Amino acid sequence: MPLPYRWLTSLMVRYNGMSILIDCGEGTQVAMKKKGWSPKPIDVICFTHFHADHISGLPGLLLSMGNAERTEPLLMIGPKGLERVVNSLRVIAPDLPFEIRFHEIGSAEESIHFGRPEQGTEQVWIDIPDAPLLKDLHIEAFRVNHNVTCYGYTILLDRTGRFDVERATALGIPRKYWNRLQKGACIDAATGEEVPAAAANAASSGENAEGKEARILTPDMVLGPARRGLKVTYTTDTRPCQSIVRHAQGSDLFICEGMYAEEDKFAKAREHRHMMFSEAAALARDAAVKELWLTHYSPSLIKPETGMDEVRRIFPHAVAARDGRSVDLIFEED
Amino acid sequence: MPLPYRWLTSLMVRYNGMSILIDCGEGTQVAMKKKGWSPKPIDVICFTHFHADHISGLPGLLLSMGNAERTEPLLMIGPKGLERVVNSLRVIAPDLPFEIRFHEIGSAEESIHFGRPEQGTEQVWIDIPDAPLLKDLHIEAFRVNHNVTCYGYTILLDRTGRFDVERATALGIPRKYWNRLQKGACIDAATGEEVPAAAANAASSGENAEGKEARILTPDMVLGPARRGLKVTYTTDTRPCQSIVRHAQGSDLFICEGMYAEEDKFAKAREHRHMMFSEAAALARDAAVKELWLTHYSPSLIKPETGMDEVRRIFPHAVAARDGRSVDLIFEED
Repeated sequence: MPLPYRWLTSLMVRYNGMSILIDCGEGTQVAMKKKGWSPKPIDVICFTHFHADHISGLPGLLLSMGNAERTEPLLMIGPKGLERVVNSLRVIAPDLPFEIRFHEIGSAEESIHFGRPEQGTEQVWIDIPDAPLLKDLHIEAFRVNHNVTCYGYTILLDRTGRFDVERATALGIPRKYWNRLQKGACIDAATGEEVPAAAANAASSGENAEGKEARILTPDMVLGPARRGLKVTYTTDTRPCQSIVRHAQGSDLFICEGMYAEEDKFAKAREHRHMMFSEAAALARDAAVKELWLTHYSPSLIKPETGMDEVRRIFPHAVAARDGRSVDLIFEED
Repeated sequence: MPLPYRWLTSLMVRYNGMSILIDCGEGTQVAMKKKGWSPKPIDVICFTHFHADHISGLPGLLLSMGNAERTEPLLMIGPKGLERVVNSLRVIAPDLPFEIRFHEIGSAEESIHFGRPEQGTEQVWIDIPDAPLLKDLHIEAFRVNHNVTCYGYTILLDRTGRFDVERATALGIPRKYWNRLQKGACIDAATGEEVPAAAANAASSGENAEGKEARILTPDMVLGPARRGLKVTYTTDTRPCQSIVRHAQGSDLFICEGMYAEEDKFAKAREHRHMMFSEAAALARDAAVKELWLTHYSPSLIKPETGMDEVRRIFPHAVAARDGRSVDLIFEED
């Protein structure tokens, strides 16, 4: 239930001018404006579930994205029924200048990647050429434990290894290809042209079409081991469960519901499949995250800060988040 | 488009603990909470039209009314298509503890009354026994001029005449019936029982079922001429038109859109079927209302107050309304 100065829970992740939104309750677009953020560059909206407090702001947001003259397709990710629910809400937002694509999560856990599918993986691949920055990250959706189908999300910004000059030199990789290889391209050394990663795997030995000896140069030839990227996990509307601990493992930021702080509300939390502050803190500890933000408080919880002593005994680096909280996450290594 | 500190336009009319809402954009329920008002006693919601900024807050409001344990039916009034639009939005608010009744406006002008229909009138009658206070007022819906079907609304609180002791005494009305007659009841003098107004009209002379001479006592026998009640007119999303002047005539409060203040926006106002500040002022003057509130500003209009000198030259008693503005309207006479 939205309250003055405490609106509904939503997360906006911004990366190089591109944005991903998780949940969109009533008023989300105004929260964005208060931060000075535009809804236009949102490439993906993930929904945890379809309770009104997590999706009722969608029609207004879509219209504002349209008013901002977005034309690139928008991807929506959510539980089964997503397309039906969104199309029903669009009775008041029927005309938009951009296409909406839907990905309904088909199993309890999904690792969603962007770009052309790589062979031999069990990952879900979604190719959106208009959103090239999406290829830098991937999204894990994991089923949690609420009274309707509900998912948590982990957003991972992947990071390649450092450029290894010694190795590139030892392998005799021509210097003119270094920059493109570092940026992730696979290159046919015979022609100097880029080839798809899948083709590069298949053709790493053998001859190319013109009969010359094929030598496909791949990024791993010039890069050291992948470096630690960034990881943010978001989950609301759930009892504590092991899928959260597993997916939140080592997150730079773990945003978790804390519905109630007072221990006498435990029966209520269990009945409505929500979480106590102390339970969220235990998840943060078990997942060894770097920082915990609590959110999604019950309207009955007037001062969330008063519950934080108990939380910090279990997990010290915890914050009772308020509307508009944001942080810049920075890569650990150079 | 909602902005921080400038949410979407909505009007709540409160009377003796009962409320009527006109329009419900995103965030309306929070605006109510800021005023300290409950959504629970809303008996009627009128919609001007179905653009998202006038209805997107409905699912959340309905759920909050349900959380507040409302069980009495809720009446919605709006253009044709109302039931389809509301039911489509209810994909995220399917389970409510109260019934929703729909009245779709069937013509360009409708005078909507509450209670049992009176014979020989062209008015629309809607009987909601659970909402007895509605009988004290009626609602006029009138078509305005927008790019979709759109209505303005006038809410009239009717007021009976003063009790006329001399007349009641001269007509020999027994003193024991005075109070009930003053409150609007019709009474069969032979039995002392109340009879419906329609039956009272038909049977005002003649015999009753038991063969005694029928004498039906009616409120007009003890009341002077009807006194001036209260009148509020609300209209947004329209070009100026004569139906507004006609229905707003003499309103105690006239709430009207003022989309643009700067005269160089006139072409834009005409194209999108909206109104200039000066046009709203001219309507207020022509309708001889007591007070004008402007609202529904374009996001491009940063400081509405700067346009008010021009407005007040045309109609002096005008206000550039801001979020949360309210007034208590009081009967003119005792």
